[in-house]
Formats: sequence, structure tokens, C-alpha cells
Amino acid sequence: LAEGDTSKIRAALDELYPAQLLEHWSEFTPEHHLPILTLLSPADAAEVFSHLEENEQAELLEALPPSRIKELLGELSLDDLTDTINAVEEESPEAAQALLSQLDPQTRAEVEELAEYDEDEAGGIMTPEYVAVRDFQRVEEVFRFLRREAPDAETIESIYVVDAQGRLEGVLSLRDLIIADPKTKVAEIMNPDVVSVRDDTGQEEVARIMADYNFNVLPVVNEHGVLVGIITVDDVIDVIQEEATEDIYRLGAVESPELVYSKSSVWALWSARVRWLVILVVGAMFSSTILEGFQNTLQAVTALTFYITILLGAGGNTGNQSSTLIVRALATGDVRGRDSLRILGKEFAVGALLGITLAVLLSAKILLDGHGDILLVVAVSLAVLMTVTNMLGALLPIGIKKLGLDPALISNPLIATLSDITGLLIYLTIAQWLLHIKPT
Amino acid sequence: LAEGDTSKIRAALDELYPAQLLEHWSEFTPEHHLPILTLLSPADAAEVFSHLEENEQAELLEALPPSRIKELLGELSLDDLTDTINAVEEESPEAAQALLSQLDPQTRAEVEELAEYDEDEAGGIMTPEYVAVRDFQRVEEVFRFLRREAPDAETIESIYVVDAQGRLEGVLSLRDLIIADPKTKVAEIMNPDVVSVRDDTGQEEVARIMADYNFNVLPVVNEHGVLVGIITVDDVIDVIQEEATEDIYRLGAVESPELVYSKSSVWALWSARVRWLVILVVGAMFSSTILEGFQNTLQAVTALTFYITILLGAGGNTGNQSSTLIVRALATGDVRGRDSLRILGKEFAVGALLGITLAVLLSAKILLDGHGDILLVVAVSLAVLMTVTNMLGALLPIGIKKLGLDPALISNPLIATLSDITGLLIYLTIAQWLLHIKPT
Repeated sequence: LAEGDTSKIRAALDELYPAQLLEHWSEFTPEHHLPILTLLSPADAAEVFSHLEENEQAELLEALPPSRIKELLGELSLDDLTDTINAVEEESPEAAQALLSQLDPQTRAEVEELAEYDEDEAGGIMTPEYVAVRDFQRVEEVFRFLRREAPDAETIESIYVVDAQGRLEGVLSLRDLIIADPKTKVAEIMNPDVVSVRDDTGQEEVARIMADYNFNVLPVVNEHGVLVGIITVDDVIDVIQEEATEDIYRLGAVESPELVYSKSSVWALWSARVRWLVILVVGAMFSSTILEGFQNTLQAVTALTFYITILLGAGGNTGNQSSTLIVRALATGDVRGRDSLRILGKEFAVGALLGITLAVLLSAKILLDGHGDILLVVAVSLAVLMTVTNMLGALLPIGIKKLGLDPALISNPLIATLSDITGLLIYLTIAQWLLHIKPT
Repeated sequence: LAEGDTSKIRAALDELYPAQLLEHWSEFTPEHHLPILTLLSPADAAEVFSHLEENEQAELLEALPPSRIKELLGELSLDDLTDTINAVEEESPEAAQALLSQLDPQTRAEVEELAEYDEDEAGGIMTPEYVAVRDFQRVEEVFRFLRREAPDAETIESIYVVDAQGRLEGVLSLRDLIIADPKTKVAEIMNPDVVSVRDDTGQEEVARIMADYNFNVLPVVNEHGVLVGIITVDDVIDVIQEEATEDIYRLGAVESPELVYSKSSVWALWSARVRWLVILVVGAMFSSTILEGFQNTLQAVTALTFYITILLGAGGNTGNQSSTLIVRALATGDVRGRDSLRILGKEFAVGALLGITLAVLLSAKILLDGHGDILLVVAVSLAVLMTVTNMLGALLPIGIKKLGLDPALISNPLIATLSDITGLLIYLTIAQWLLHIKPT
């Protein structure tokens, strides 16, 4: 690339899909990114550009020649353009203003309108590049209109029907249009039963609707029912993956769902993780107080200490399993808050069965170790502990959902820490009681 | 519903989208499912039916009148029809044969061909209901063809171009077709640079390609390059959600990724969870052996026992965080196996920083408890332990990926158990060494 001749490289780049180029993007040195973007066709350059990290976008916009920037911005879809300008604005408001001033007045007004929406609501992921017609038009007219509008539209698979005020009245699929007689009026073939979302609908809800209804496009209306944009399924796939990453991070007690591992510094990783670790270690500090409180018991029967790790580990693992199942079932809508009694009953039974299974197994180990005197204490503690932590793992996500928070906040480490504290209390109380040891 | 009059109910049902009906499906009693399915329009009935659980599908097929079954099967898309017949076959091969015999010979042949593919490869999620044309045809001819074929095609957004042997040569978007002059030949406007997948490509790979390239449709070819089907984006959304559920379950040490919580019995839940719990408790049994081996040390300085739970908890939590980050980064393609050295360096730094942060915090607690004599032992152990478990949490998913297995097999409970064993060894060795205690 460094010394190759331009036309050959251009030809080679033309063969590639933007997605293929993006896959190998980080393998090129940063100095090569600018020339590559200059050699690509404007459409491909825009496609590549819109998938880059925000800080790289801002850097490239500073380095690219103004004519190229204008070409590139012209090729971006309005929603990507708005995201880019938002990103530049965070770094430098003046640069964002300079970009806006290069747009034609109409585009500029549309971008400014889109920029008003939150990034995680329907308005923030929609694009206003839809095709809308009136119900008195005939199919042949719609085709003439489509021929003119198609190049600028994000999709022409669904054509929307609006009234004089722009309110959404119906939808027409391109398929119906092709089959229809050219003289037919839109009103006769449109489907008036159109599913839409409000512009302030959350992106998770949008994703759920599109996935459930198998829609490729979903219209967005404002508070007056006026069609303001469409959301296409490719944006929703991104939302679904973001939401899954967020849930997985939260379950692992990692903050900042937007963190991209390969692009994060050591300090960024530290700060995404330290808060939960501090909260959890402070919570765990109760355990030293509990152990000190039961000093008598531990000194009277030293062997009790040997099984602490096994018991607490099994309790944490069990709680993690049940919370994992419930968090996912809540996220996918498989169970709801009002099912909580049924879930608790089920988890009581599952926890008790698992507890008994593992207690039998551990009993063999205790006998092998020659500690038959505490067999009953350890086995009973394990069964009780697993039943309790299993219900805890199910109850906490449901409880936090009822408070209106994300169930995935109940991370695996949080369950493990709570189960450590509960486990010590259960184990040492049962020991004191079954072995008739006087408390301190 | 029980006593309402049929035409009213039918009118009410007609107003509903199949997705809305499905959302409330479990709220109807099972006896009502059959009449509802009978009253719906055949297309809606097929849509609802294709989203039901497999055992319910089999039951309904036994109860529905033969004429209704024929209507319903006729409305199902070929991929859904194949899934349904596969499901029925698992319960009763004779019933599946009876269904097959009701299909017309061509459909039957196509279903039998689709049934050959694995459920989790491209061939298993594709449908053969695509539209294909030849490159010498003119745009107006294609339109005439589309008018005839559109009602049966899964999508007409992309039209594929094949040669005389059916080999995929190019793709044509409906948008290009609408803009083009009716006399233009397909060869002039088609895009010969068409991205396709082989029929034996895994479904995760298919989902990744469609998400990266923002495709709504992806053509599938066989080993000879012959077009055999298309995959639409709605099937891919299901794959993405299935994969996320699978990862989340695995991270929580729950087996059977297809488990649906609300539909699973206590025994099904027990068996999805017991194997990992047994493996982990057997692993944890080393801890009692280690603790017994260091009995001398623990008896010489009893206060050491009080901090075991805090140390092991913090180690497990740290390892969980790093494994969560790496498992997700591997799943989304953000990092690869060959980045392992860079990742280990990063995690060494992050782990050490986190360890020092928490060691400072814990020192305050130890001083408050009046155990200044073991302050150094506990603080040093915590920092070392967190650095080690942090690297372990990053290394294990990478290692298992290199073995060709799913990194998400490194569950949070597995990390916690391994970190317990490592942690005890580190803590008690450091204690023995710094406090100059003679080993047993």
C-alpha cells in the first residue's frame, strides 16, 4: 500500500465490500486509514466511515479535504450523519458547526431535528428517509414517484400512506404494489392496520416488537400520530447485540455497557470494574465479623473450617444458576414479575433437590477425610444453604425488576457475596446447635 | 369465548396481529387454543402455529380436522413446515408420514430435502422460496414474472440471477429494477459481486455476516455453487437471541441452551444444573485438603481464618469480571486468540491495580478489627490473588477457544471454584512464609 500505484489500489478496494474492509481495518496502520478512505467510492467510504469509532471519525474529519468531506456526508444516511455530528460535537462544538454549515439547508434542518432525540429511543435510531404517498393516488402514480425517490430512500419495501397532515393512515408493501393493477387506488390495497411506535419508545421495546412481528421496517410517529421516520431491521440487530452485551457485562459485575475491550485503556477497564469490587468487598467484610463472632465454635471443632470453602462455593454456584435463568427469562419476556410465587415454589423444589444431591456426594468426602463427627452438620448445612441461595438467586432479579430496575444488575458476584454471608450464618448456627457448643 | 357467537369472535380475532395473539396465548386455557386456531384466517393460523412449542404443535395437529390441517400446512413457509414435520416426527413417525402424504408431490420433495440439513446450519434455516431469473431477461419480463411469483416468495426485495445450471451469478435489488428502463437486460443492472454462504455454514457465522453487511436476505448455495435457498433477517434475529441466551446460560453454568424456563419442570431444571454443580463441588473438595494441610498455620494464628471468605470472594469476583469481558469480546469478534499476549499484559496491569486498591481498603478493616499483626499477610495475599485470578479469568476463555470450544464454557462458577483453590494456596503459603510458621 505504501508505494503501490493508486489505480491498482483503487481497483483492489473496489472489489471489497465495506464490511470486508472493516474486518481488517485495525490491521492497517492508522496512517493508511486516510488514503484508503480517499480512494474508496464515496458510497463505500461513507459505509466504512459510519462504522468507525467516534474518536476516529472526528480525527478523520479533521484530516480529510473539504470536498471529500462533503461527498462523504452526502452519502451517509441521515441517522448515521446525525450520530457522526453528535460524536464530533462531543469533541469540538466548533468542528460540528463547521460540518453542519456544509450541509444543504433541508438536510441540516433534518439533522438538527434528529439530534434532539435520545440515542436509545425510537427517534434516536430512526431515519426520516421513508417513502410516503396519499390514499387517493393510483398504483401507476406511486411507481412514478418511487422511480424518483428510490435512490434516496433507506428502503422502499414498505410505502407509507399519510393524510394531508402527515398522519400515518396505512402501509403498502412493494409486493402488493407489483401485483396490483396500475389503475387501482392506494386506499383499496393499503393495509390500514399498521403497527407503529412513538418516537419516545425505548429501543429495547422497538427491538422486541420488530423481532416478535418479524418486521423489516417499523414506522415511527410523534405525539400527534404524524409519521416522522422509519426504523430498519439492521439498526435493531445492533440494538439486540448491545442489549445482550449489556446484560452479560452486568451479570459479570462490569459497568459501562458501551466498553469495547480492544479499544479500552487499562484505566478505563479499572474504572469499569473497581466500583462493584469495592461494594462487594465492603459487603464481604461482614464475613470476618461473623467468623470472629463464632470463634469459639471454630476453635472447639477445627475441622469445621476445612469445609467452609466447599459450602460457600456450592451456595454461590447454585445462586448464580438460578439468577442466570431468571434474569434471562425476565429479559426475553418468558416470565414476568407477577409469576414470582410460582417461581419461588419451583426454585424451592429445585434447590432442595440439588442440595440433597450434593450433600450425599460431600458426605462421602467427609467420611474419607475421617471427620464423621461433623458429617451431619456439614451435610444439613449444605442442603439448607443451597435451598436458600437458590431462592435468593431467583428472588433478587424479580425484586429489582419490580422496583423498575434492570434485573441484570443482580450480578453473579453480588449473588456470590450475599450467599457467602448467608452461608456462614447458616453453617455456623447449625454447627453450634447440632454440636451443642456454647456461644462466646 | 366459551359461549360467545362465532362470527363476533372471528371479527375480533381478525383485528389482532398473530404476534399480539401469541403474546397472550398462555392466558387462554389449552381447550381454547383449538377453536381459536380454527377461527383464524389460514394465514394468521399458520403464523401463530409456527411460533408454538413443538409439543403443542404435535397435539394440535392430532386434534384439528384434516381439511384445516391441509389449509394450515399450505400457508406455512417451507422452512417452518419442515421444522413442524421434524417436530412431529420426534413424537410419532407415523403422524409425520401422514402429514407428508397430504402435501403435493413437489412441496413434499422440497420438505424432504430441507429435512436433511442440521437445524443449526444455513441449510436448516433457509427457505427455497426465492425468486430467480436469467441474465438475458429484460426488466419488463422480470416484472411479469414477479407479478406471478410474488405471492409465494418469502421476499422479493432481492432477486437472484442464475445460469442454466442454477449457479448463482448475481443479485438484483427490487429498487434497481424499479428505476431501470423496462427494456434493459438483467445482465446490465445486476450486481455480479454477490455475497453468499454455503448450505453447511454454521448459523452463528450466517448471523455475523448478515449483521456485519447489513443484509436483509442472504443467498445459500450448495457445493456446486447452485442457489438452493435464501435466509431472511427475521430468522437471523432468532439466531442472535438464541446465541445470547446460550452464552448467558453457559456463563451461569446452566446446561441445555434451549431450556425455556416457564415451560420446564423441576426435574428438567435439576438436570440442566446438577452436572456442573457436581463437577464444581468435586473440584472444590481440594480446598478441604489444602485447609487441613495448613492446619498448623491456621491454629497458630486463628485470625487468618476470619479473612478467608473476603479474600476468596474478591478473587472470584475479579476473575468473573475479566472472563466476562473476554468471553464477550471473543463472541463479538472484538478480540481473537492471537491477541492473547496483549490481553494478558493488559489484565496483569488491571488486576494489579484493582488488587492494590482493594488491599488498601481491606487494611483499614483489619486495623479496625485489631489484627494489625496479619495486616501485611492479608493485604499482600489479596493483591497477588486478584492479579492471578484476573489473569486466569482472561486466559481460560482464550485457551478454550484455541481448543476449538465455546469460550462461554468458562462459566462464572468455574472461575470462582478455580480461584478458591488458587486463592487458598496463595494466602496460606504467604502466611506461612511471612509469619515464619513451620509446615506440619
